[in-house]
Amino acid sequence: MVVKVYGPAYASPKRVLVCLIEKEVEFETVPVDLLKGEHKDPEFLKLQPFGTVPVTQDGDYTLYESRAILRYYAEKYKSQGTDLLGKTVEERGLVENWLEVEAQSYNPPIYTLTVQIMFSSKLGFPRDENLIKESEEKLAKVLDIYEERLSKSKYLAGDFFSLADLSHLPFTQYLVDQMGKEYMIRSRKHVSAWWDDISSRPSWQKVLQLYAAPFKN
Amino acid sequence: MVVKVYGPAYASPKRVLVCLIEKEVEFETVPVDLLKGEHKDPEFLKLQPFGTVPVTQDGDYTLYESRAILRYYAEKYKSQGTDLLGKTVEERGLVENWLEVEAQSYNPPIYTLTVQIMFSSKLGFPRDENLIKESEEKLAKVLDIYEERLSKSKYLAGDFFSLADLSHLPFTQYLVDQMGKEYMIRSRKHVSAWWDDISSRPSWQKVLQLYAAPFKN
Repeated sequence: MVVKVYGPAYASPKRVLVCLIEKEVEFETVPVDLLKGEHKDPEFLKLQPFGTVPVTQDGDYTLYESRAILRYYAEKYKSQGTDLLGKTVEERGLVENWLEVEAQSYNPPIYTLTVQIMFSSKLGFPRDENLIKESEEKLAKVLDIYEERLSKSKYLAGDFFSLADLSHLPFTQYLVDQMGKEYMIRSRKHVSAWWDDISSRPSWQKVLQLYAAPFKN
Repeated sequence: MVVKVYGPAYASPKRVLVCLIEKEVEFETVPVDLLKGEHKDPEFLKLQPFGTVPVTQDGDYTLYESRAILRYYAEKYKSQGTDLLGKTVEERGLVENWLEVEAQSYNPPIYTLTVQIMFSSKLGFPRDENLIKESEEKLAKVLDIYEERLSKSKYLAGDFFSLADLSHLPFTQYLVDQMGKEYMIRSRKHVSAWWDDISSRPSWQKVLQLYAAPFKN
């Protein structure tokens, strides 16, 4: 029985897709069109009361919140595919540290940039140029800390690729492509090398090939 | 060798303190005065480059981000004290789901309320009444979903107390006490019973007794 992932066209669900490919877990996807408001349909709200994607179903077990789903599949299939959690409790601790940094410090400004730059015209509200400038400044400060960290270890949690790195893929791809802000990555030597490394993984290339962004800018 | 926790007067570090008490792990605390800007001292930034609390040190192993620290100690001392992670990979998945809900949906509005209501005058900026109203509305919607969830299971992740519940303690205590918004909890029957249950745990009462809020309102 293959697992299901809802909302494959969007960034947060792509975290789950790339994780499942790394873990060699078969899955199928269920489209949810956010631009048509399908995430607010009563049937969908039964699965995910907050009305966001992704949701996953593993048989009759339902889970949401992308980073929770990552941890679940990485743990359930610990010994299959790429190990994404570290080998010791200390390595796992550092994976959690940097996964939380992604969630708490990296994602808020890059998510705001995504909504403002990529989705505002689609959703029918004007771009807030001040908010874009402020979010880019916040993201730049976070990237400065990443530059320092990545000058000391190849990946965020240490010398192994993990959920902490993987979780950055979808929104950073938007930043580099659709948002035209690749300079934020390229102006930082170690961040740039890290980005080349993680974004060229076959798992991520496969996600990009199979599931296009929700629209072309 | 006891573990160290930096910043015990503040809400996020208290997540770690209550976890360590539940896990029966001995610790000592290191004060960090945010109102004096001690979290921006160069020595502190060497431990935590983002300049926030908590930080923990377990021997020469350093970790930050409160929810990462919770997972680390809950995993390291899995078989000691209260089990806070669930017994199966499916239970752990639900703990992660609701811990992410706390981090992504519950914490942002309650954190904004805390800063606006409790800290604005201390930090020398005016209260933004619109932002307070908007944050209270967001938090109310989240609490409505909690009410529904807690009508079906005693705790957020199921019928066992876990990190998902524990993580709500410090800021919800501010909401009920210093912010005078206990009605948000009491107007929802199942949320109210859940709050009585988790806030009366000896571990949390001990944290409140040992570490006062940073100031009286």
